Amino acid sequence: MKLHCSRSILATAFQTVGGVVPTRTPKDILRNVKLVVGDGQGTLVGTDQEVGIRYLIPGVQTDSAGEVLLPTQRVSAILREVQDDDVQIEVGTDALWIRSGRSEFKLSIIDPAEFPDVAEFNDVNFIAVPGKLLKTAIQRTVFAADVESTRYALGGVLMDVKGSDLTLAATDSRRLAVSKAPVTVHGEPVADATAPIIPSKAMSLIERNIADPDADVQIAVHKNDVLVKCGSTTIYSRLVEGRFPKYQDVVPKSSKVRIELVAGPFLSAVRQAMIVTNEESRGVDFTFTGDTLTLASVGADVGTSRIELPVSYGGDEITVTFDPKFVVDFLRVFDSATAVSLNLNDANSAALFTAEENHQYVVMPLARE
Amino acid sequence: MKLHCSRSILATAFQTVGGVVPTRTPKDILRNVKLVVGDGQGTLVGTDQEVGIRYLIPGVQTDSAGEVLLPTQRVSAILREVQDDDVQIEVGTDALWIRSGRSEFKLSIIDPAEFPDVAEFNDVNFIAVPGKLLKTAIQRTVFAADVESTRYALGGVLMDVKGSDLTLAATDSRRLAVSKAPVTVHGEPVADATAPIIPSKAMSLIERNIADPDADVQIAVHKNDVLVKCGSTTIYSRLVEGRFPKYQDVVPKSSKVRIELVAGPFLSAVRQAMIVTNEESRGVDFTFTGDTLTLASVGADVGTSRIELPVSYGGDEITVTFDPKFVVDFLRVFDSATAVSLNLNDANSAALFTAEENHQYVVMPLARE
Repeated sequence: MKLHCSRSILATAFQTVGGVVPTRTPKDILRNVKLVVGDGQGTLVGTDQEVGIRYLIPGVQTDSAGEVLLPTQRVSAILREVQDDDVQIEVGTDALWIRSGRSEFKLSIIDPAEFPDVAEFNDVNFIAVPGKLLKTAIQRTVFAADVESTRYALGGVLMDVKGSDLTLAATDSRRLAVSKAPVTVHGEPVADATAPIIPSKAMSLIERNIADPDADVQIAVHKNDVLVKCGSTTIYSRLVEGRFPKYQDVVPKSSKVRIELVAGPFLSAVRQAMIVTNEESRGVDFTFTGDTLTLASVGADVGTSRIELPVSYGGDEITVTFDPKFVVDFLRVFDSATAVSLNLNDANSAALFTAEENHQYVVMPLARE
Repeated sequence: MKLHCSRSILATAFQTVGGVVPTRTPKDILRNVKLVVGDGQGTLVGTDQEVGIRYLIPGVQTDSAGEVLLPTQRVSAILREVQDDDVQIEVGTDALWIRSGRSEFKLSIIDPAEFPDVAEFNDVNFIAVPGKLLKTAIQRTVFAADVESTRYALGGVLMDVKGSDLTLAATDSRRLAVSKAPVTVHGEPVADATAPIIPSKAMSLIERNIADPDADVQIAVHKNDVLVKCGSTTIYSRLVEGRFPKYQDVVPKSSKVRIELVAGPFLSAVRQAMIVTNEESRGVDFTFTGDTLTLASVGADVGTSRIELPVSYGGDEITVTFDPKFVVDFLRVFDSATAVSLNLNDANSAALFTAEENHQYVVMPLARE
């Protein structure tokens, strides 16, 4: 087996697929990526058995066929260091050669048959979501998941399809992020299925691999896993088992007060208020009066702070205490000019942040001291 | 005490002085920096008791005097996050206020009297070195020191003054870097003194603080410490105790073979050869023949590599085995177009790399297998 390829294209392929290769694993074989060659094409496959990726390498020149395992770290280093843009890979029976310019590397190889497969996307029943909208919806939910939780379902993002609406939801039980995007259903919709929960690691991988914002991303949900096709890249992920909280019940249906804010200045003020807090007293009081939002933090022995921000709010004075980290997590994923609304009932009820119609974020206030 | 200052200037001051503030220390007080105000000036002082720095903050407006300890991390965060460029610091009896725009931070303070002092540069006996040349000499020696060594002297850089020559030397006992720069002696030269050894952490701090390449850096060596003045910044460092190896004896006096190389392509070739090595067999064979340098690595079970580089060498074939890391460490501190000479006697004797007349680097070859 023999192929030619551009160094920079192959380096990009290794960087993409290398993203799922585990650095620590008891299964040594997973430290490799599999190169599959045939029909004049080359595909790179990497997996940690929970999440996997198949990446079609563009512009490969080959007339042979076969598979080989490439040690990810060393080959990545070779592709980073060699100076010539033409790279040749040749595979023999017990070694492989990588050649570029006047450099030659001979690496031992191991049997690719033992490498776990990553399925190809051959589904006829799937949903399609515009790349740009899916990317945004993932960015605005995935941060709220809790991968440390013993409730595994909280470590993933719920993917709920109802008619032509896709809803992504993620929560760590103290805050909840919900984003919607339109979908087109192809083939048979999955009848009566429970909405799948996708590990947040896989969601971030999907988000990073949406290269063309105008192209659709295709998603095929199976009983235990999901396949996602972004352009010529296919991502596989096991589903997370467990019950996801009934997120619809958590979102407040109505609110007494609605305050309009701008993401950038609001984020800056909250980040300032966060400085003088500590683990023991991390709450920040958000007080809205006529035309001012005042953030007041009391960091016990550390000190206090008072940050003011002009707002347009005509109602009665209201104070609510938040963990500022939760507010920062939400605001930082928006452009600074984005309009954000804060909907409140009282100091002890769930607060609802909304932005751009499709994005909701619910935060439970902290108990007032 | 009260002062006004530009946010960005104060942030730069904190970043500079914060570089010596220890993040882990049993002495909590060292996590602060001391702000000293008087005569319309403000100075920031930080120390970990081994290395310290005094930084004159330009453009401070004040008509008061006094000292206060500022918690480094929180004040740095405040200066990073506030949006207005005017910052006011006011110090009361048991608290200090930092105000900027509509933000106010009140921080508790502790007694500055307990903070270890960092001496001012008032010496009349010192040497002066052109900033640019000192900066280069430090960059080209400090990497060869061994801060992990139990022989403390190897964790520093020797600063040897003979007449109008300053020689910096650093070694980990397997390689030695030597760089020279011209000095001017002011006042009395330190008579019969042993050349001081300065911790490599302090040398790197000096290197980073040489802002004006055309200005002289002033260095005053005392019995147990050294003071270095770069512009309006003074750096203090304790000296390292111990005996530094007789570096002059290590540099080969003559060589049978001299090969001319160019730093950039040579570095690239050695980095490539380094990929297929491992802890057990990290040697790379450097073989010079007529017009080619061939680097051959044998990484045991990992594989092998063979990298060729055109060189102009007319002599007999010669092979010498180096730890490629040592060669990389030296080459990476030069611009890629720099001419480098490699001077060899045989495969078992110390090899001497030279560059730009002022820089020497001695590496012991590995035993051939």
